[in-house]
Amino acid sequence: MFENKDSSHTSIENLGEFGLIDHLTKNFKIKQKSTVKGIGDDAAVIACDPKEELVITTDLLVEGVHFDLSYVPLKHLGYKAVIVNLSDVYAMNAEPTQITVSVAVSNRFPVEALEELYAGIQAAAQLYNVDVVGGDTTSSTTGLLISITALGTVKKGAAVYRSGAKENDLLVVTGDLGAAYMGLQVLEREKEVFKVNPNSQPDLEPYSYLVERQLKPEARKDITNLLKELEVRPTAMIDISDGLSSEIIHICKNSEVGCNLYEDKIPLDPQVIATCEEFNLDSTTIALSGGEDYELLFTISTEDFPKIKGNPHLTVIGHITDEKEGVHLISRAGTKIPLIARGWNALKNEE
Amino acid sequence: MFENKDSSHTSIENLGEFGLIDHLTKNFKIKQKSTVKGIGDDAAVIACDPKEELVITTDLLVEGVHFDLSYVPLKHLGYKAVIVNLSDVYAMNAEPTQITVSVAVSNRFPVEALEELYAGIQAAAQLYNVDVVGGDTTSSTTGLLISITALGTVKKGAAVYRSGAKENDLLVVTGDLGAAYMGLQVLEREKEVFKVNPNSQPDLEPYSYLVERQLKPEARKDITNLLKELEVRPTAMIDISDGLSSEIIHICKNSEVGCNLYEDKIPLDPQVIATCEEFNLDSTTIALSGGEDYELLFTISTEDFPKIKGNPHLTVIGHITDEKEGVHLISRAGTKIPLIARGWNALKNEE
Repeated sequence: MFENKDSSHTSIENLGEFGLIDHLTKNFKIKQKSTVKGIGDDAAVIACDPKEELVITTDLLVEGVHFDLSYVPLKHLGYKAVIVNLSDVYAMNAEPTQITVSVAVSNRFPVEALEELYAGIQAAAQLYNVDVVGGDTTSSTTGLLISITALGTVKKGAAVYRSGAKENDLLVVTGDLGAAYMGLQVLEREKEVFKVNPNSQPDLEPYSYLVERQLKPEARKDITNLLKELEVRPTAMIDISDGLSSEIIHICKNSEVGCNLYEDKIPLDPQVIATCEEFNLDSTTIALSGGEDYELLFTISTEDFPKIKGNPHLTVIGHITDEKEGVHLISRAGTKIPLIARGWNALKNEE
Repeated sequence: MFENKDSSHTSIENLGEFGLIDHLTKNFKIKQKSTVKGIGDDAAVIACDPKEELVITTDLLVEGVHFDLSYVPLKHLGYKAVIVNLSDVYAMNAEPTQITVSVAVSNRFPVEALEELYAGIQAAAQLYNVDVVGGDTTSSTTGLLISITALGTVKKGAAVYRSGAKENDLLVVTGDLGAAYMGLQVLEREKEVFKVNPNSQPDLEPYSYLVERQLKPEARKDITNLLKELEVRPTAMIDISDGLSSEIIHICKNSEVGCNLYEDKIPLDPQVIATCEEFNLDSTTIALSGGEDYELLFTISTEDFPKIKGNPHLTVIGHITDEKEGVHLISRAGTKIPLIARGWNALKNEE
């Protein structure tokens, strides 16, 4: 749909496995001083700083499950595949430093398609200042699959886990929620229109923010520094990949606490509200279960509230309670509704 | 064929993504003291030792490309998926410490099948003393795919690269070559027999070593210590995954040297020789191009020769020459034949 389909086609088989990796990564530059050896040996070598700890996280994106190439340009896909991993690193209060990228592709992809994918990977690596230090490229019998592992560093003892939330802590979220999911709805609708009339030119202008949040999400690299500047250390933190509801439940389960979430506090972009009305969807449900926002959700001690009050990036949406009180949404009408994890579940193939 | 097919079937969807990971990894124990936090948060946390550097490597195994589930039991597959990564860590002169495991599966696999796969992963992790610290589980539209990333540590400055071989260095290989490939030939033949007559009971006894090398390879964890004891530091090292020929060329290309490999020195197990005769295959070709041996190939200074002489694990198979002399096999008849990289290429789907 948006993809600039190039007419040139070089078969992957022509290059072979080693030629392909060399070809795809030849423009990648090493910037992190901790990268002793990048791509090109049996393994990469990374220097250790005794004042730091290392974090490691991994994510798998599968065609037909996590993305639909009929409306996701390959460059955007490469970018997003990096972002979802970096978001996990930031959620530990860490800074990403290196990634490895493994890709399985069927022969229907020409080398030019992989170049697009890697251009997106490189763009994200450059913007977030991480080195691509390894990977694997292989054929697949069907679709495209991307597996990325990210490394990061955090000051020794400064990692923030899901398990540290305490009763009375405030629940804080960055940015706004639900836009990525509504972007997906808009793209799915345009795909159906396109099927009926391939000459139709979609007007996506009214949905620009939503579509961008879906196709080119960013990880909150600013928040770690912002919190340092504000001298706030979260007691627990997680990134929002599966939906607010599911992430709150993760924090509560791991911290053995309950939570009250206030519906009227959930930050929503005007485009989300307008598009939810257009699609006849409840915007709170979308924020709770939509997912792919890649915002950070964290808890802070009430003492820290004055430090974050009024900050445009941060919204207090609830507070932590005793475990026995359970996990609830307090609706605009004041009703207490139990929260359930209904996040995006890649194993159920519902979406 | 060998698989003990259990009749119980629990659908993956019943457990959901989070339930599934918890379920599959609940028996995994943390043993490495550097593992600060394992599975269960946005990322794992690993302690850094200032006297060490870290190595990281990743490998992707795809059904229909790297393995055939009609004769590879899932437990063996899980085991092998770990081994191929650890082999890369040992090839850096490092000790593996942690792995992450990502799996994409279609719904045709019941939970019990994944339990088998993870039992194999756990068995390898236990034997090689590595912690499983993270991963991702998702559905796939078709087959099974396993992506593993391994971390390891090496004394600062002690990593051995592919690039350090010098003229006159000796080329040394561990163990013997070609058995894994011949094991694959035996299994492929039995699969064809089984198709014609599903009641046939294959007699694999004469091929036991070959089949074991194919289905349950081991990584050479003993060699790093052996070399330390012998006070030998390789000048260059690589593991043999794609075949001897291809790995020699990697070392030569990265070290900017040439090499003479002596056909009569290549270590072959008697089962390899006998089975090559039976299959009418040339055993030297198999050793050169078969791959999946997971032995280590390294170069040492001639001064170190007395230290390794007579060691049953190590065989000197050639020597490094000036780059201009090229890379050659010296045949039993004394003919000089240029070596070409004809290793197993996952992108060509030849095999």
